Amino acid sequence: MTDSKIYQASTTAPVNIAVVKYWGKRDAKLNLPTNSSVSVTLSQKDLRTHTTAACSATFPSEDTLLLNGSPQDVSGARTQACFRELRALRSALEAQDSSLPKLAALPLRVVSENNFPTAAGLASSAAGFAALVRAIANLYELPSSPTDLSRIARQGSGSACRSLFGGYVAWQMGNEVDGSDSVAVEVAPTSHWPTMRALILVVSAEKKGVSSTSGMQITVATSELFQRRAEVVVPKHMELMEKAIKEKDFETFAKVTMMESNSFHATCLDTYPPIFYLNDVSRAAIRVVEDINAAAGKTIAAYTFDAGPNAVIYFEEKDLDAVAGPLKSALSGLDGWQAAEREIKVQGLDKVDERAVKVLKDGVSRIILTSVGEGPIKTEESLLKADGTALRQN
Amino acid sequence: MTDSKIYQASTTAPVNIAVVKYWGKRDAKLNLPTNSSVSVTLSQKDLRTHTTAACSATFPSEDTLLLNGSPQDVSGARTQACFRELRALRSALEAQDSSLPKLAALPLRVVSENNFPTAAGLASSAAGFAALVRAIANLYELPSSPTDLSRIARQGSGSACRSLFGGYVAWQMGNEVDGSDSVAVEVAPTSHWPTMRALILVVSAEKKGVSSTSGMQITVATSELFQRRAEVVVPKHMELMEKAIKEKDFETFAKVTMMESNSFHATCLDTYPPIFYLNDVSRAAIRVVEDINAAAGKTIAAYTFDAGPNAVIYFEEKDLDAVAGPLKSALSGLDGWQAAEREIKVQGLDKVDERAVKVLKDGVSRIILTSVGEGPIKTEESLLKADGTALRQN
Repeated sequence: MTDSKIYQASTTAPVNIAVVKYWGKRDAKLNLPTNSSVSVTLSQKDLRTHTTAACSATFPSEDTLLLNGSPQDVSGARTQACFRELRALRSALEAQDSSLPKLAALPLRVVSENNFPTAAGLASSAAGFAALVRAIANLYELPSSPTDLSRIARQGSGSACRSLFGGYVAWQMGNEVDGSDSVAVEVAPTSHWPTMRALILVVSAEKKGVSSTSGMQITVATSELFQRRAEVVVPKHMELMEKAIKEKDFETFAKVTMMESNSFHATCLDTYPPIFYLNDVSRAAIRVVEDINAAAGKTIAAYTFDAGPNAVIYFEEKDLDAVAGPLKSALSGLDGWQAAEREIKVQGLDKVDERAVKVLKDGVSRIILTSVGEGPIKTEESLLKADGTALRQN
Repeated sequence: MTDSKIYQASTTAPVNIAVVKYWGKRDAKLNLPTNSSVSVTLSQKDLRTHTTAACSATFPSEDTLLLNGSPQDVSGARTQACFRELRALRSALEAQDSSLPKLAALPLRVVSENNFPTAAGLASSAAGFAALVRAIANLYELPSSPTDLSRIARQGSGSACRSLFGGYVAWQMGNEVDGSDSVAVEVAPTSHWPTMRALILVVSAEKKGVSSTSGMQITVATSELFQRRAEVVVPKHMELMEKAIKEKDFETFAKVTMMESNSFHATCLDTYPPIFYLNDVSRAAIRVVEDINAAAGKTIAAYTFDAGPNAVIYFEEKDLDAVAGPLKSALSGLDGWQAAEREIKVQGLDKVDERAVKVLKDGVSRIILTSVGEGPIKTEESLLKADGTALRQN
């Protein structure tokens, strides 16, 4: 008799935004990077993927993945690698303990929902693969640590490995050919430095021209400056950044964050043909951050940009008015300000470049005000109906 | 009795646009660069400085310089260095031959006129200092070669040394501490490869934020990637570029030109705080050049950008329609197309990105269609009236 039970587990997982950037693979299949990186995990209150992983003998025999109600292709090497590695761990458990149900052999049904627009360029694949791996690990009741799981999530999407932890997270590039030491580790938990805030300016983007996966491969192949970044610049920034986080030294954190972003985008521009992620709106955001820091007489805000034009501005809670004030004054009409933990004083618009403000007004479509936050959180909230079908399916 | 004669000589001098870029000084006082560079001298029909240098015992005792009718400050170290070195050469001649009039002791009056807007970011200081040095050398009847004069013009404005020659010109960075071997030499004359054309898209610019003089010093001081550019990238590009020019190999010329521009702007972006010269209009020009090359199935056009958003697009005369056609179609309303040596076929607009074309339409204020051209040309046309005062003075 077949077991008709539907086994399932659910989790949420966060987005992370790197302050030392991942760009360049030394092994494209295993997603092994050419340099280490560091990120801040962002609060799941504002940005998270919610995932339910289920398996059952009653499911059709193919593994499936539904994202925001739409079926996704799971035949790609990256998703397959995650499924395969997690199943292997489950099989090992089952081999040790014959009383365990034989879940590894059952088809998987994974259902995911983001609480933010997937297309907005907000590192959705990091949260997505972290949630997928964490949910299946929970389903399989694996004893794996977040670092163990990061090794698997990395194969889904490089930066996903960092979303297995909350707070401040390093992805150590590792040296091994099989990637066994290319994993995420905690630099410091959220509680160590809980006052870190992030203001995201979502830019009404042109469609992304170059995917980050192909982009970084072209950079490695063609940029003459890239090698120096990987060999000299990033190791130095890693050391400075880990120390800054441990000492809660915002000025160093900020300076390294900004130089890192610039260095990464410089190697994109040095790629042939060149890759541009920053546009005039991004430049205006940089100018406004520079003006905010100049007005404060010290560095209280740091910009960083991933593979897209959105600005992420890090600052400390005590500087909420000084940093978010001018931006709220400029962008008061946009959604997102209501999420502030306290009313932001509308002020300081006179301290920032007028032309940059105009460019932001025309080019920013939405803001997200968030903070450093926790890693994946187990939840009982399932995205499946009692019969095992998805609550939402387009 | 005092000699009341007004001695004078006039010349015109060209603009040059580098294809291997000068950025970074190893000695700011002597304008000694951190790397060699190569440029194409542009035709004086379209872009030139016309300068008359005069001296007379009847002039007031101060040296003066008038540019486009406005008095300029000549007390700066750069102008003073040019005056001093040229006077020293004249003094040496006078010491050898006592029959020569004692011009070195007389006050200088230099009058210059550009045939293009000074503020448009079109390398006006290069043409300006080349014309100043050449005109005074003519006035003093110096036997100096263009390379000798380039050593002096370099001290006025680094890239001015390349405007002492026509055609294809290298500025050898040199090794000596006194700058004696940091000079311009001819790579090939105009006649070697006369079919080189340049289409300049003048961008309705924001005022330039960072001067190139201070910008390059901040890059040297702060960019971690810059050192690799100076030590590894540029020497390689110099070799490829000189060979490409000698062999009239446009594809290599074009590829190195584009990679050089990107590498230079990458180190600007890697500067802290970052320096941006490219804006969304520049990016659109890059996109259109990429599309033109894609449509041709080979590289027939090359973009390059100096310290500003203007695009200079190099191509060969035989590709006039294929390169300038789409741009004329997009920008037909602008001044400048009437300078074409033959009617440009309006064509190919369907082959270039529609959104990029829209950005160019909104952001390009003027086009200049020109070609490789000659070095400084002696002229009898004086910018002085018979009484020694300037024809035009604001």
